Amino acid sequence: MLYLVGLGLADEKDITVKGLEAVRSSERVYLEAYTSLLLVGVEKLEDFYGKKITIADREAVESAADAILKDADHVNVSFLVVGDPYGATTHTDLVIRAKERGIPVQSIHNASILNAVGVCGLQLYNYGMAVSIPFFTETWRPDSFYEKIQTNRLNGLHTLCLLDIKVKEPTLESLARGRKIYEPPRFMTVNQAINQLLEVENGRGGKVYSDKTIGVGLARVGSLDAKIVVGTLGELSEVDFGAPLHSLIVPGKMHPLEVELVETFAINSTKFRENVQMV
Amino acid sequence: MLYLVGLGLADEKDITVKGLEAVRSSERVYLEAYTSLLLVGVEKLEDFYGKKITIADREAVESAADAILKDADHVNVSFLVVGDPYGATTHTDLVIRAKERGIPVQSIHNASILNAVGVCGLQLYNYGMAVSIPFFTETWRPDSFYEKIQTNRLNGLHTLCLLDIKVKEPTLESLARGRKIYEPPRFMTVNQAINQLLEVENGRGGKVYSDKTIGVGLARVGSLDAKIVVGTLGELSEVDFGAPLHSLIVPGKMHPLEVELVETFAINSTKFRENVQMV
Repeated sequence: MLYLVGLGLADEKDITVKGLEAVRSSERVYLEAYTSLLLVGVEKLEDFYGKKITIADREAVESAADAILKDADHVNVSFLVVGDPYGATTHTDLVIRAKERGIPVQSIHNASILNAVGVCGLQLYNYGMAVSIPFFTETWRPDSFYEKIQTNRLNGLHTLCLLDIKVKEPTLESLARGRKIYEPPRFMTVNQAINQLLEVENGRGGKVYSDKTIGVGLARVGSLDAKIVVGTLGELSEVDFGAPLHSLIVPGKMHPLEVELVETFAINSTKFRENVQMV
Repeated sequence: MLYLVGLGLADEKDITVKGLEAVRSSERVYLEAYTSLLLVGVEKLEDFYGKKITIADREAVESAADAILKDADHVNVSFLVVGDPYGATTHTDLVIRAKERGIPVQSIHNASILNAVGVCGLQLYNYGMAVSIPFFTETWRPDSFYEKIQTNRLNGLHTLCLLDIKVKEPTLESLARGRKIYEPPRFMTVNQAINQLLEVENGRGGKVYSDKTIGVGLARVGSLDAKIVVGTLGELSEVDFGAPLHSLIVPGKMHPLEVELVETFAINSTKFRENVQMV
């Protein structure tokens, strides 16, 4: 059996009881570690699960599917994914290959940031499509998120912005030399995301949002140390959200019921009431 | 501490380890049981958690918030919710009341149907807003889902249809008599949902979808017994999905990567390829 096991969002105890049983029954355990990460190190997971974990970075999952699936028709293999197995990315390729070989696949679901953001009080069925905000570079400043936020806002819908993370990315220089050297991991902050959003608005001028638009900044959702702050994008760009992972929501129009809970996280209630868009 | 604990989707072992510890540390444990339900009975939960559980139906949560929150500033109380605590509904009122009284609240997240549907291969960030399909009655046939599906499809986005459940609903007759008698629980099937969808299309004629449109029917997601079938709405309306809970997806335009996995669930690959809409 190939188990795709969601780990949830924060630490080693966010795995489900079913997921833990699957891991403990497995001969080999892999951890997908390039689209997201937990707030604790892999040693914590190994101690708690009682299993050695092999880190599967992007290259390993793409090139070593054979090794991962080896013998999975008669022994259990667990492939661990932060959040839900189908949250941030689909491990489509691995699942399809398993199916082709007649290996049974069981998905053990868990929270992903896509539903856990409900904690801020914005109702999940009032979201439009989610967008990814990539780190801008000198020469690469992709801004397709702008039209998506626009479409959502025109329809009154909230937008969850998933902020870029870079784990084990080869430097461009090392790629040119043909021997990969990896950049240190980087995680986009709410502040960086807002700066990029406002830069694109300034360039495009579509009035989709401004520094007066209400936003919701979130950090370390699902942990005891979670931080949720509501304010204008201008206000939020000054807030220190601390350690990763961060997310940002650009709300559409809020229902009164949403306002009531969201307001409890506001930096400044008066300013919030002045700038919030209601249904 | 008030713990809002997500139970996940299928059975007693879908709780997270963190959630289980919270429940076992609690003096009182309530289960919200009117917006969704697990695929096992409450006795199974009580046995596994080692705790007596009080069922909180809609009336109890609305009228007995005081009883639920009693002493929660110095003892632990767990409020269990199927899926994620913020998935299908927000327990806004309870959280706000707790905050007003200075009771600390911790949310322990879990999978909800909103992210677990990723298992069918449609990527979660390609969904527009989710819709609810209510049971039609002779006199009440609300169809606001139609415009929402239309908006999503115009934007190429998938729509998750959450199908109605009726748990402990008083009969209209008994309400008129002033003494509540409850209807037996009912859960909308994929087939019923499709019939309602097609009825509304026939009445409106907006060509948002038809019986040739590809749909994804899902039942008991998250359990070993899960069933996922892909076919035209016409085909799916004939499929027996078995026991509740059911969900339906009306896809927008699929990416090639989505098609590859979705197709593995197709009743008829040729028909699927003929009718699927690609990006």
